[in-house]
Amino acid sequence: MRIVQKYGGTSVGSLARIRAVAQRCMETKAEGDNELLVVVSAMAGETDRLIAMANRLLDGGEGRGDSLAGQAWVAPKRSGNASYERELSQLISTGEKVSAAMVAMAINEMGGQAVSMVGHQLGLRTDRRFTNARIQAIESERLERAFERGQIVVCAGFQGIDPEGNITTLGRGGSDTSAVALAAAVKADVCEILTDVDGVFTTDPRIVPNARKLRRIAHEEMIELASLGAKVLQIRSVEFAMKYGVALHVRSSLNRNEGTWIVAEDRDMESVVVRGVALDRNEAKVTLTDCPDVPGTVSTIFQTLGGAGIVVDMIIQNASRNERTDVTFTVPESELERAGELLRELPLLTNAGTEILTDRDICKISIVGVGMRTHAGVAAKAFAALAEEDINIQMVSTSEIKVSVVVEERYGELALRALHDAFVLDAAPK
Amino acid sequence: MRIVQKYGGTSVGSLARIRAVAQRCMETKAEGDNELLVVVSAMAGETDRLIAMANRLLDGGEGRGDSLAGQAWVAPKRSGNASYERELSQLISTGEKVSAAMVAMAINEMGGQAVSMVGHQLGLRTDRRFTNARIQAIESERLERAFERGQIVVCAGFQGIDPEGNITTLGRGGSDTSAVALAAAVKADVCEILTDVDGVFTTDPRIVPNARKLRRIAHEEMIELASLGAKVLQIRSVEFAMKYGVALHVRSSLNRNEGTWIVAEDRDMESVVVRGVALDRNEAKVTLTDCPDVPGTVSTIFQTLGGAGIVVDMIIQNASRNERTDVTFTVPESELERAGELLRELPLLTNAGTEILTDRDICKISIVGVGMRTHAGVAAKAFAALAEEDINIQMVSTSEIKVSVVVEERYGELALRALHDAFVLDAAPK
Repeated sequence: MRIVQKYGGTSVGSLARIRAVAQRCMETKAEGDNELLVVVSAMAGETDRLIAMANRLLDGGEGRGDSLAGQAWVAPKRSGNASYERELSQLISTGEKVSAAMVAMAINEMGGQAVSMVGHQLGLRTDRRFTNARIQAIESERLERAFERGQIVVCAGFQGIDPEGNITTLGRGGSDTSAVALAAAVKADVCEILTDVDGVFTTDPRIVPNARKLRRIAHEEMIELASLGAKVLQIRSVEFAMKYGVALHVRSSLNRNEGTWIVAEDRDMESVVVRGVALDRNEAKVTLTDCPDVPGTVSTIFQTLGGAGIVVDMIIQNASRNERTDVTFTVPESELERAGELLRELPLLTNAGTEILTDRDICKISIVGVGMRTHAGVAAKAFAALAEEDINIQMVSTSEIKVSVVVEERYGELALRALHDAFVLDAAPK
Repeated sequence: MRIVQKYGGTSVGSLARIRAVAQRCMETKAEGDNELLVVVSAMAGETDRLIAMANRLLDGGEGRGDSLAGQAWVAPKRSGNASYERELSQLISTGEKVSAAMVAMAINEMGGQAVSMVGHQLGLRTDRRFTNARIQAIESERLERAFERGQIVVCAGFQGIDPEGNITTLGRGGSDTSAVALAAAVKADVCEILTDVDGVFTTDPRIVPNARKLRRIAHEEMIELASLGAKVLQIRSVEFAMKYGVALHVRSSLNRNEGTWIVAEDRDMESVVVRGVALDRNEAKVTLTDCPDVPGTVSTIFQTLGGAGIVVDMIIQNASRNERTDVTFTVPESELERAGELLRELPLLTNAGTEILTDRDICKISIVGVGMRTHAGVAAKAFAALAEEDINIQMVSTSEIKVSVVVEERYGELALRALHDAFVLDAAPK
């Protein structure tokens, strides 16, 4: 077997953890004489430490950011400036280089044979978007030569080079995407995402205690269940895996249990109507009352928001009366204020006397399953379950494999439990 | 003018110092519309932090080495093992990458135009000796393109790539060598070594208060005065500068004063008989009494030591009596014990009943000047000066531009002052 394993920042977050990773790499290689390519993130906190150090450099501050390890994501200072983003990528890509060399060193010390690949050595070619680069091609000759020599190839995640040889980085969670892309390039049998949870669950186990670990899930389902998966792996990497037919296996780095396989949909999967339910608290609702119901109104609104980089999720337009209509949609909560400001400056709305109402106290619940395509009545069953709990549904949107509803935020957890029960997700599929 | 500037670890050792470096780069570029290439070391303590972290990884320890900054040089754990040294180079080369990106970022923030070059981007090709690589060629097209765009090129020192694209490092002080090699490759008018002293002095000012800062010194003289220069710049870089005719200017990063130019010897320089005097306390003396005076004895002794990597400096063989002779030589004090052990295992000596005497309490004083070639009597004058102070000379060796004497260690500083006075080194040459 040819196996790709990706270890995140927590898994390489200490010297003891690095040695444990090295040990697991040795064992994985030994089981059945496998070929192994490992992708590592920066040690937990290291990327933020480097960004914080750069921020303080520009602020006129002092320190190397040693105290920052473990803090939440630090925002870069001068996003949008190409020179800055180039240097930021050159800077923060060192974190994964350190991890890769350390893991390779630990494997060699244990008597294994490993070689680290960083920066240009990976052959991972990207476009020129320095801190949010897209992979364009992978030259895998060098990786193949290492396989031929029987070496474990330890790759620095998150980084590539652009056509000029500048270091680029793939954005937050980019090491997952590195792993999937490398798995596709070397035609790996599986890309294992080693993390600190046991796999992907039918829903968030902290809210629904009888949530069940999924044995398998289709790529599409995983993408729709982003809010479950985001803690486990970057959704972009799943899109990549779907595109290139890479089988992902999300499992714990702390034990050898089987985790969750994220695979291409097959007929067998359709027998399960609902795979999982997810709760997203980070949305907010905007209602525009009495919009002029003439051609171009709605497109102007959403072009304005889109042009400002605000992603609109669910959209509902009510039936028109007196050539007026209400438009309701959701945006990320963090963008709500900016969305409101932009809309209040639109003459189209202000001239018409449109009221712009915003509501942060909502949440979105999504029911996902590829089996919905062939089974009717999923939405009806969901609505019934919510009605039984007296939960009012504010918005609904459906796709082929998803039903999403917006409810008042305080009912979110109750709604999630009700739906998990209604679709009997705690029971393993027959 | 095309200028190369090299900033050491202390000069980029804090965010404030990095901003000061950026400021100086901007000013240097602006003065006379210069082209500027900057070479930076890792932030002070960073290389040792990384080595210490790797050591602890292999020892089974914990920690990232944060507490180590400022400590003296940390020895790598598994020197001599190629896989280890490859990974160590991949690891420790990240220190200079961080500095280069930070300096470039600071220059851009101040409104300048800078671009960092690290790893493969430098075009600095070396052999395959991972942690002690030798430069073989520099592909400077990329650097030239950056000059054409008017950019300040900020290069990560200490690193290159071997023919396979592995990262190599140039050994301790390697950033000096990077700077000289890059200066040679881009045909710079001068390579400035920015450091925390004002230049090279006629001798150690801490011992001889009236030591004088030299305005100029020949490459050869600087190499012979290694013990003065070692604190300022890597001697290997001076050899490189001599070979490729690069003019070096050692000056302070803290002020704009002229420092010391290290230049190719010219006729003018010969008018100065003695350029400087240096004291080396790190030598020890070995005396072999009653060695068999037959062909091959001496070569066996020094082949044994050389084969073990022990560098022998001064060698004296006394006149033979009864087919026996005394051999005396010096080795680095740190190697004295090992040298003794090796010699005590030599049948040639043990069979002959040779006594192996060792003495740590010595030091070496060297008088250096290219003018000696054309002036007689330097040694005689030196001996007279020492005799006047009742200092006994244990060993003497001379070269074209140097006279070295070994004296008892406790007389070392007195001897240095006596010689500095005898050759009136505190007075500027006419």
